[in-house]
Amino acid sequence: MNGQPRVALLCEGLFTTTTAKTAIGALRYAPYRIVAVVDSTREGVDASAVLGSGVGSGVPVVASLAVARGLGVDVLLVGTAAAGGRLPASYRPILAEALAAGIEVWSGLHERVLDDPDLAAAADRGGARVRELREPPRELPVGGHRTRRGGTRVVLTVGSDASVGKMTASLELARALARAGRRALFVATGQTGIAIAGDGISVDAVISDFVAGAAEQMVCDAAEQADWVIVEGQGSLTHPGFSAVTLGLLHGSAPDDLVLCHDASRVRMKGHDDLPLRSLDELVRIYETAAAWSRHPDAEPARVRAVALNTAALASSAASAAVAAATTLTGLPAADPVREGSAGADRIARALLMGAHAG
Amino acid sequence: MNGQPRVALLCEGLFTTTTAKTAIGALRYAPYRIVAVVDSTREGVDASAVLGSGVGSGVPVVASLAVARGLGVDVLLVGTAAAGGRLPASYRPILAEALAAGIEVWSGLHERVLDDPDLAAAADRGGARVRELREPPRELPVGGHRTRRGGTRVVLTVGSDASVGKMTASLELARALARAGRRALFVATGQTGIAIAGDGISVDAVISDFVAGAAEQMVCDAAEQADWVIVEGQGSLTHPGFSAVTLGLLHGSAPDDLVLCHDASRVRMKGHDDLPLRSLDELVRIYETAAAWSRHPDAEPARVRAVALNTAALASSAASAAVAAATTLTGLPAADPVREGSAGADRIARALLMGAHAG
Repeated sequence: MNGQPRVALLCEGLFTTTTAKTAIGALRYAPYRIVAVVDSTREGVDASAVLGSGVGSGVPVVASLAVARGLGVDVLLVGTAAAGGRLPASYRPILAEALAAGIEVWSGLHERVLDDPDLAAAADRGGARVRELREPPRELPVGGHRTRRGGTRVVLTVGSDASVGKMTASLELARALARAGRRALFVATGQTGIAIAGDGISVDAVISDFVAGAAEQMVCDAAEQADWVIVEGQGSLTHPGFSAVTLGLLHGSAPDDLVLCHDASRVRMKGHDDLPLRSLDELVRIYETAAAWSRHPDAEPARVRAVALNTAALASSAASAAVAAATTLTGLPAADPVREGSAGADRIARALLMGAHAG
Repeated sequence: MNGQPRVALLCEGLFTTTTAKTAIGALRYAPYRIVAVVDSTREGVDASAVLGSGVGSGVPVVASLAVARGLGVDVLLVGTAAAGGRLPASYRPILAEALAAGIEVWSGLHERVLDDPDLAAAADRGGARVRELREPPRELPVGGHRTRRGGTRVVLTVGSDASVGKMTASLELARALARAGRRALFVATGQTGIAIAGDGISVDAVISDFVAGAAEQMVCDAAEQADWVIVEGQGSLTHPGFSAVTLGLLHGSAPDDLVLCHDASRVRMKGHDDLPLRSLDELVRIYETAAAWSRHPDAEPARVRAVALNTAALASSAASAAVAAATTLTGLPAADPVREGSAGADRIARALLMGAHAG
């Protein structure tokens, strides 16, 4: 296909705010056109009627792929992520229909679409492609051997833990920089981000020797098309299981600027009740220190420029207090880029633009 | 096979000090019995006549696998690592002969033995197993969810760069601790180490999400059998390409003690001429700092207890000066555990034993 594809979101029986995370992300942030959500149990309404807050406005929920095809569909994106990562049984006939009709399928699930013999046969019949979003490219370089285009600025979101809002902060930040007139590009490093961007590498699925190389490749490619490259972070340097991913991404993307992300309601590491999170000021030191290790000692250091808080779990007054406390603790601008709307992300973007100006 | 296997080393045409790195490592350190080296171009001598310094003493170089089989062989280990990691053509008939005879083959090369249809057919015929030493297990856990047996002490070797002698230092250290009467076990994390130990996981070939989990699994298993677990380090936290592997190993193995390894002749990162190595005192801070990140703030910190230098490229006086300088710079005991023989490794082991005593 040329240019941006026309995408339908497959959410059969599951188009709810709690189960359709990928679909919601795509409706909120995707650069491509979304023509319909497929869910026969909710057909006939506007997607925004299900999701609220205006997300999905103008996108119809339809009963079948056939109806969506009438609206013009190039790609069918699996819009939900079930626990265990299996393809729901209700999806299989719809996926088979799409593949037999030559419609490309994108899936971020663990179970591979073409491992189902019926779906593989349908794809053969229709000559349709399947993009497994979690599956990294076969050939990746070792990091440290490519230099990106001069004059670009690279921002990496880093976090106090996994799942604190790094993807959302990155997407909001790319939008805020675009609002400020900058050529900004979001670089996706996880399956939901890839489904949204339509491109990227799931770095946690990359062989450890090539994590930095994968990040470097994505950043260098993005720097050919944009002046600001916003890289979606993963995990945390303080996470006992995922820190390898985080350091590979930090060294490979070689950012100029960091934005520290934190879920303001979280005090312990997710899945590790005995492990308190590090304080925000300590995390600033940790990330700036680690970023410098793989650089020449005289190189410009990466600096944390702002804090992006996720205050979704807090009441309004507690959220404001958390934002103020983050600034007091770190001396940096802080915002919740979702709760505060564009004003929040713009505050973070201003900190980045000032940092770039200061050099 | 029960207990330790009887192993022949396949080095056909390549049994030299520069090409047979895996074979030399095995002859020096392997716990299993090596019955012969197969190299028809050097047959009839003792392996030590080729290698010098007594390594391989008592192990004959033989003309063929048939001769080796007369000495009793359970396993044929590929003893060389050609650039590119391909199986040399001269190895294929010998591997086919072994597999057809039911002899297990171990290989650390990139090219998989059973990808050669002739070798796959031979293995089928002989019912022989192939162990691809670089290939990690299919199922690995995420790190941070298993606690090792209390009372064990875990030592990880860390480095100023890749390829500075971490494997050798680890092996010498395990021996020195055994000499001191401790139950010590070497944990291999790279292909040569695995060929030597006969066990282990090549962590740089593990998906990044599971590097820490792989290290944790190996360490916890080893701690069931030993009081001192010596983990072979990989890469460096300061390496632009491989730091992800290093941090995953550091957090997953959760060491009590670190031994800092450095090639005393190296001043720039291997493969990165523009990147000076960090000083030893700075590296001590870097590793101790990073080790703490994934732990509870009140947990016992990991400490660098000694410096293991590789002075192979230096003249004798320069080597002594380098050892003295390392101690001056770091305030830690330093030694070249190869050049100084057992006295060197014993010095490092004493530092570890004192560290354990101090708690």
